[in-house]
Amino acid sequence: MSQRPLILVTNDDGIFAPGITALAKIASKFGDIVVVAPDKPQSGMGHAITINSTIRIQKSHYHKALMEYSCSGTPVDCVKMAVNHILKKRPDLVISGINHGSNSSINVIYSGTMSAAIEGALEGTPSIGFSLCDYSIEADFSQAEKFIEKIIEQTLKSGMPKGVCLNVNIPKLKAEDIKGIKVVRQAKANWVERFDERKDPYGRDYYWLTGEFVNFEPESLDTDEWALSNGYISVVPTQADLTAHSVLKEFNFS
Amino acid sequence: MSQRPLILVTNDDGIFAPGITALAKIASKFGDIVVVAPDKPQSGMGHAITINSTIRIQKSHYHKALMEYSCSGTPVDCVKMAVNHILKKRPDLVISGINHGSNSSINVIYSGTMSAAIEGALEGTPSIGFSLCDYSIEADFSQAEKFIEKIIEQTLKSGMPKGVCLNVNIPKLKAEDIKGIKVVRQAKANWVERFDERKDPYGRDYYWLTGEFVNFEPESLDTDEWALSNGYISVVPTQADLTAHSVLKEFNFS
Repeated sequence: MSQRPLILVTNDDGIFAPGITALAKIASKFGDIVVVAPDKPQSGMGHAITINSTIRIQKSHYHKALMEYSCSGTPVDCVKMAVNHILKKRPDLVISGINHGSNSSINVIYSGTMSAAIEGALEGTPSIGFSLCDYSIEADFSQAEKFIEKIIEQTLKSGMPKGVCLNVNIPKLKAEDIKGIKVVRQAKANWVERFDERKDPYGRDYYWLTGEFVNFEPESLDTDEWALSNGYISVVPTQADLTAHSVLKEFNFS
Repeated sequence: MSQRPLILVTNDDGIFAPGITALAKIASKFGDIVVVAPDKPQSGMGHAITINSTIRIQKSHYHKALMEYSCSGTPVDCVKMAVNHILKKRPDLVISGINHGSNSSINVIYSGTMSAAIEGALEGTPSIGFSLCDYSIEADFSQAEKFIEKIIEQTLKSGMPKGVCLNVNIPKLKAEDIKGIKVVRQAKANWVERFDERKDPYGRDYYWLTGEFVNFEPESLDTDEWALSNGYISVVPTQADLTAHSVLKEFNFS
């Protein structure tokens, strides 16, 4: 094996999604790539892992990669499987995406794309999740190419603090209209849900989860939502400590 | 409907698990309870939501509840379904569990039990996830009863900072050996994974995800792992901001 960086590429839209093809192509400029990605769409899987059923992997040759496997599990399973079984070593970088749709703000906790990057960081590897704010299967991933290259190149050069990964969201804009890259925090926001109620052909009720995104702080200038609305790529350094440190002292049960 | 508090009870082990039966029974001392819980075990589902398939709910009468439904979705789906469709209002408290097994430290991001509590907090309701450090189906949930009552009672009385929930883990001890309740932070830890490789009857490989928990800071006295190892119930105030605030200034891509 060469001395080029070893880059693990994964996603949550599945191994055949246009977004991972675009990302694998960009990554191959910087190192040898290994693709381990879900064998079917796994959007909204969050940090799910497969513990109540078995996992299968299958060699595939869809991307130009050193090794490539589709995996029956979740995005987090893919990273665990790649690092602990397929590679049996830590890659130099884990990249996930490019997701078809935003993973900014509170979406980060529902996102399979970002959970794969968080898992990469937990395994001790600099990791980045990329998402384009365009859900279309025809989304144009090429417009942000030079920015993605810059973020990958700088991360390979400078590394990442232990346990931290990057949540990169890209506005749906032409290359010349992207104003640059802003390092920001996750905006406070939520989804207001509605369940679309339908009847199946047998008269039984079923539901589709739908909802509307609500930004609780549209005027804050230091958030990912602000950056995206104002033509910037947002980069949120992200980690898996969920402790609400600022209110720890407010509780006492003794 | 009476003026007693309305308490939503859910879990990730499924509506028939002994842990939710124990929790529903305790909760009914403090308010009217509504149970909406998964129709099958959903351990390790993290913050997954069901967006690529449909969701069904089914009335059931397993617990002594004002209303009770099993749901085909994840623990987070159950909370969304309860708040937005079944109740069409915010409950006064969301409680999740009692989980069969620990959700301390890094387990919080894989945990369906805790993701339900986090979702409750996102929906604006004081929420608590309870877990007993005993995976057995025969686990004795009664030993910690008075502590669980204390935490529920105090939360109903004092509320919770917006967006925050509690991650409560209970050591596997007899009531008289539990030393008390400590408010602590999530310990830095990880799972070192191993994939157990097997062959199916047709000669094809499949895998089970297994692993070993590694506490990176066994000597820190302010963590949930320390509390549990030393006979205390751990309470970690928990929230869904994944921003790595302490290293935001270390990044610059301009």
